[in-house]
Amino acid sequence: MSIEGPAEGAAVFPCRMEGSSSVTRQPEDYMARALHLARRGLYTTDPNPRVGCVLVRGNQIVGEGWHELTGEPHAEIHALRAAGEAARGATAYVTLEPCSHYGRTGPCAKALAEAGVDVVVAAMLDPNPQVSGRGIAMLEAAGVGTQVGMLEADARELNVGFISRMSRSLPHVRLKMAMSLDGRTAMASGESKWITGERARRDVQHLRARSSAILSGVASVIRDDSRLTVRMDQLSRPESHAVQVSHERGVRQPLRVIVDSTLSLPPTARCLTEPGRTLVATVSPTGPGALDNRGHFRRREALVAAGAEVVTLSASAGGQVDLEALMHYLADVEQCNEVLLESGSRLSGAMLDAGLVNELVIYMAPILMGDEARGLLTLSGLEKLSQRRQLSIVDVRAFGPDWRIIARPVNDHETS
Amino acid sequence: MSIEGPAEGAAVFPCRMEGSSSVTRQPEDYMARALHLARRGLYTTDPNPRVGCVLVRGNQIVGEGWHELTGEPHAEIHALRAAGEAARGATAYVTLEPCSHYGRTGPCAKALAEAGVDVVVAAMLDPNPQVSGRGIAMLEAAGVGTQVGMLEADARELNVGFISRMSRSLPHVRLKMAMSLDGRTAMASGESKWITGERARRDVQHLRARSSAILSGVASVIRDDSRLTVRMDQLSRPESHAVQVSHERGVRQPLRVIVDSTLSLPPTARCLTEPGRTLVATVSPTGPGALDNRGHFRRREALVAAGAEVVTLSASAGGQVDLEALMHYLADVEQCNEVLLESGSRLSGAMLDAGLVNELVIYMAPILMGDEARGLLTLSGLEKLSQRRQLSIVDVRAFGPDWRIIARPVNDHETS
Repeated sequence: MSIEGPAEGAAVFPCRMEGSSSVTRQPEDYMARALHLARRGLYTTDPNPRVGCVLVRGNQIVGEGWHELTGEPHAEIHALRAAGEAARGATAYVTLEPCSHYGRTGPCAKALAEAGVDVVVAAMLDPNPQVSGRGIAMLEAAGVGTQVGMLEADARELNVGFISRMSRSLPHVRLKMAMSLDGRTAMASGESKWITGERARRDVQHLRARSSAILSGVASVIRDDSRLTVRMDQLSRPESHAVQVSHERGVRQPLRVIVDSTLSLPPTARCLTEPGRTLVATVSPTGPGALDNRGHFRRREALVAAGAEVVTLSASAGGQVDLEALMHYLADVEQCNEVLLESGSRLSGAMLDAGLVNELVIYMAPILMGDEARGLLTLSGLEKLSQRRQLSIVDVRAFGPDWRIIARPVNDHETS
Repeated sequence: MSIEGPAEGAAVFPCRMEGSSSVTRQPEDYMARALHLARRGLYTTDPNPRVGCVLVRGNQIVGEGWHELTGEPHAEIHALRAAGEAARGATAYVTLEPCSHYGRTGPCAKALAEAGVDVVVAAMLDPNPQVSGRGIAMLEAAGVGTQVGMLEADARELNVGFISRMSRSLPHVRLKMAMSLDGRTAMASGESKWITGERARRDVQHLRARSSAILSGVASVIRDDSRLTVRMDQLSRPESHAVQVSHERGVRQPLRVIVDSTLSLPPTARCLTEPGRTLVATVSPTGPGALDNRGHFRRREALVAAGAEVVTLSASAGGQVDLEALMHYLADVEQCNEVLLESGSRLSGAMLDAGLVNELVIYMAPILMGDEARGLLTLSGLEKLSQRRQLSIVDVRAFGPDWRIIARPVNDHETS
């Protein structure tokens, strides 16, 4: 926790927000501050959501906090501790509905009420349908005023993967690609390093750091001998709180997930020696497309001996790993909120075809590679223009000489 | 001409620039105003450059003008007429060096000196090497102070094609393309209407309107039965001066240029019946690749009868129209400043390969079409990543749901 100013007791410390202190703060300013605090946990709270809390009395922030690591106190508890007695009569701005369950620190809703907080403003309800609204009900039962929905779109965006997992049992999947201006990812020979520049590649490290898992196909992993890890030393914006927190608390490596129906990943693959876990998703050798029973088990044994975890999932009609089953597995068993898909045109296309991609993050380099070079996406069933996949471009910005485009499939699950 | 305020005589009228009139204007503000005026001729001055002029005395604009149509007075003459006696002792801000030749209105440099102008500030010298610097010399000989180079980059950008023609005997070629986010221009079947939305298509009309010529290959023209015309009713920004001037003075249709080595354009092609000229560029039937002598002349006759002009140019090694020869022809004979290339991946790629494209204007639609769809550019000799064509992205902006990307080849001729 990094509360600034006198952290203990009832000390009232001035609002740290930008701008002149003579300006009267609006409620939304405090919620924006809470969201800002929540973002400090961007790389560390997984699988928990990122949450921030600001306690305000008489237009003064009397305490603030944010959730840092699973197992540690929630944002509200940090804020209450910082405020001490000053919490009495305060308004709490929380980016997520306070919890109602009895965990290590008891329900946050109860703690807020017991500290004498007057009103709780939550940006959004808990997305878990089984507990959604209970925290608010607990507060109201204790006589605390409540309000829900302030800056809700921002709050939902911050925890887009957590919300997806809670409401759909699926992670929020980002498909990351690097391409030339004419939509090519590699020369015909397969040569592809480096299409984009250093600043774009550093941004990818941020995408990885916030993800619960990095997903790739075995062909890509073999071709590039990919490590699929976060290289914290390559993160840009080293001054950001979220990056500092990662450094202080130890880097959390996302789960590496490799789709490998035939278990062809060599036990010598570099990713198996990296810190963190590697999960190899395969199908049963008795299923269609897996005739080589004995070989399968031998390869499985070798991979496990090399440090991999192998999970057998249901197969698609073509004998490949059923991608929807894999995504449900990642959400339900591995508690994955955000998954970063970094693979070739085949797996990327199959994930898109299956409707499992929620966001495309495309780094576009200012180069031309020509029609002989490899394309971006293998998509099926596209013969007429009317069958094209419709997206909505939500963000475009420069990273050095390259440009990053973020697009989302239209009619995707609502995130804002 | 559309001078605001009392246009005749010596009336001093206030500066029309934005912002509070209490702010002291900087010289650059007046040059910016002159550039703004020059842009009113964006669609009408061709083949002349776009030029604006502002006369300032005592921090007041006493006259301003801009060049509208070939054969009509230059910007300086309009400004001097507007200022009348007030020109005496004024500073003239001109976006291009005043001319020194005796045309319909005599040399502008002489007119400025005779009107008693004190100082002439020119954004840039005349790019024609044969006269460059003469206007400045004429002014100085007459005792007028001079300065060259204020906001030169903007001035050069405004007349990028005129400068190219004067300094290289080549037009400035813009390659316009519409593609999906994954770099595809049409389905495998050829189906391609409409990839981009209405606002992007309207922007293309602006590109056409400012061009001296629209260049396409015969295959594309046949496939789409292209009209290759400016549809003024489809221009967005109808409120802009440049568009209004086009409406008032009659729409200038760019020259249509069709690369057609075998003269396969049917005489019934729609473009032949449109207002304006159609030039069919072909090669001699005695050259390689043109064996069918009699047929060639018969087709040529039919095309000419249908309204086309046919020009025979030197052939490349492959028996195709030599593209560099064509570009020189367009610059030297047809006085083309800016050429808009709207064609398929083959001609577009060949123009790029020949180093004849100075700017790519790509409209990117938020759709995915998949690897089976048609690619953007057929480029030759690209086997290694090191052979990729390096560009620099100079502008990225949204047009409705689509995005427009402007890129220029690195190591292209200097335009700024």
